[in-house]
Amino acid sequence: MGYTESYVEGRNAVIEAFRSGKTIDKLFLLDGCQDGPIMTIKREAKKQNCLMKFVSKERLDQMSETGKHQGVIALVAAYEYAEVEDILNAAKEKGEKPFIFLLDGIEDPHNLGAIIRTAHLAGAHGVIIPKNRAVGLTATVARTSAGALNYTMVAKVTNLATTIENLKKEGMWFVCADMKGETMYRLDLTGAIGLVIGNEGEGVSRLVKEKCDFLAAIPMKGQIDSLNASVAAGVLAYEIVRQQTMK
Amino acid sequence: MGYTESYVEGRNAVIEAFRSGKTIDKLFLLDGCQDGPIMTIKREAKKQNCLMKFVSKERLDQMSETGKHQGVIALVAAYEYAEVEDILNAAKEKGEKPFIFLLDGIEDPHNLGAIIRTAHLAGAHGVIIPKNRAVGLTATVARTSAGALNYTMVAKVTNLATTIENLKKEGMWFVCADMKGETMYRLDLTGAIGLVIGNEGEGVSRLVKEKCDFLAAIPMKGQIDSLNASVAAGVLAYEIVRQQTMK
Repeated sequence: MGYTESYVEGRNAVIEAFRSGKTIDKLFLLDGCQDGPIMTIKREAKKQNCLMKFVSKERLDQMSETGKHQGVIALVAAYEYAEVEDILNAAKEKGEKPFIFLLDGIEDPHNLGAIIRTAHLAGAHGVIIPKNRAVGLTATVARTSAGALNYTMVAKVTNLATTIENLKKEGMWFVCADMKGETMYRLDLTGAIGLVIGNEGEGVSRLVKEKCDFLAAIPMKGQIDSLNASVAAGVLAYEIVRQQTMK
Repeated sequence: MGYTESYVEGRNAVIEAFRSGKTIDKLFLLDGCQDGPIMTIKREAKKQNCLMKFVSKERLDQMSETGKHQGVIALVAAYEYAEVEDILNAAKEKGEKPFIFLLDGIEDPHNLGAIIRTAHLAGAHGVIIPKNRAVGLTATVARTSAGALNYTMVAKVTNLATTIENLKKEGMWFVCADMKGETMYRLDLTGAIGLVIGNEGEGVSRLVKEKCDFLAAIPMKGQIDSLNASVAAGVLAYEIVRQQTMK
């Protein structure tokens, strides 16, 4: 567990880092360099919307740890993911009922960071994200989490619906936000709980929603559709905290 | 009320817009143009961290409404602010107790947008921000508010503490988040309520906090300090909604 950043140096190593799907937070390139491999790297960087900085040879030499940067150094995010088991064990060790956030395809790194921060402060034991439909744990996520990423277990799973199925066998209940559900204040959220947060645009996907035990409606007035995803996560999380601490 | 954007064209008009403190969301400049007034404009733009786009003469000609852009067009945000009175009247017209958000120096436009969105959906009658210590209502705020800015009255006041004093005479109570306060679930937030949200870094300023009737503690576990400002606003706002609707 924990978030770190490391440098990857040299053309092939950086191209390889892009191809293997690593999260590259920043790319330092030798100013004026235009040859084939560098153009390939620039193309990849643009595709992935990663920040490019054009710097002098002296600056690269200074940053380089190997002395063999070949005109390019990438700052790569590395996060050691946990397993779902680890999260359940953490709850058990504390003698608490499991409380887990499941993020069904959050796309904005600011939202992901804010949600991880909320999960940590609301006392959740971990966060589960799907392998494919989600933003990675980038520098922006780490920063927006205000340090919480270092204290919060995040597990990546292939299929969120299957994970929910399995966790139900461990006695967990699942709740997601849904306008058509019962007002959240009236639900019984005092058990071992998985809080499912949907994608910013489309909400919780159908397959995942079908697995949820409770559809919780956050009361809303007004003429727009929904709260910001990280705000909705906070509102629901603290309704769970209220029910679990005040009963 | 309502958020609009308009173009300001020509060198003097744009310099004047910067000097008068208008929020310029985007600046379109003739590519390659380097003379004195343009350099002044670029300097101002850098100072205010405003997005610059270098475009062709054809593009500027196309955008121009006056045909006299002189190599520069600025996209200026315009929001028609409400008065505090208007907000109180809106509550009265609905036959509801006033519910107002007061933002004590929110600096991040994403947070401001998300908070305005929350205020609208939680049924608040308006938002009050201080004239000096806050981010303006920019395009980012409008976008993050997901349209709520068009339906939410925002009033700007010179002194938040004085405004609170005056609103107390109208029978309002004020609450702000504070770790040292009483757990929010135990407070009585069923009256006419002003919810004070502090600055991202420093929280609520001392003078404003002294005016608050309730210090509300959001229960927090974990090893970091505080929730994201917009999440904290959402959590507190919905505790108010719960108390007012469920009692």
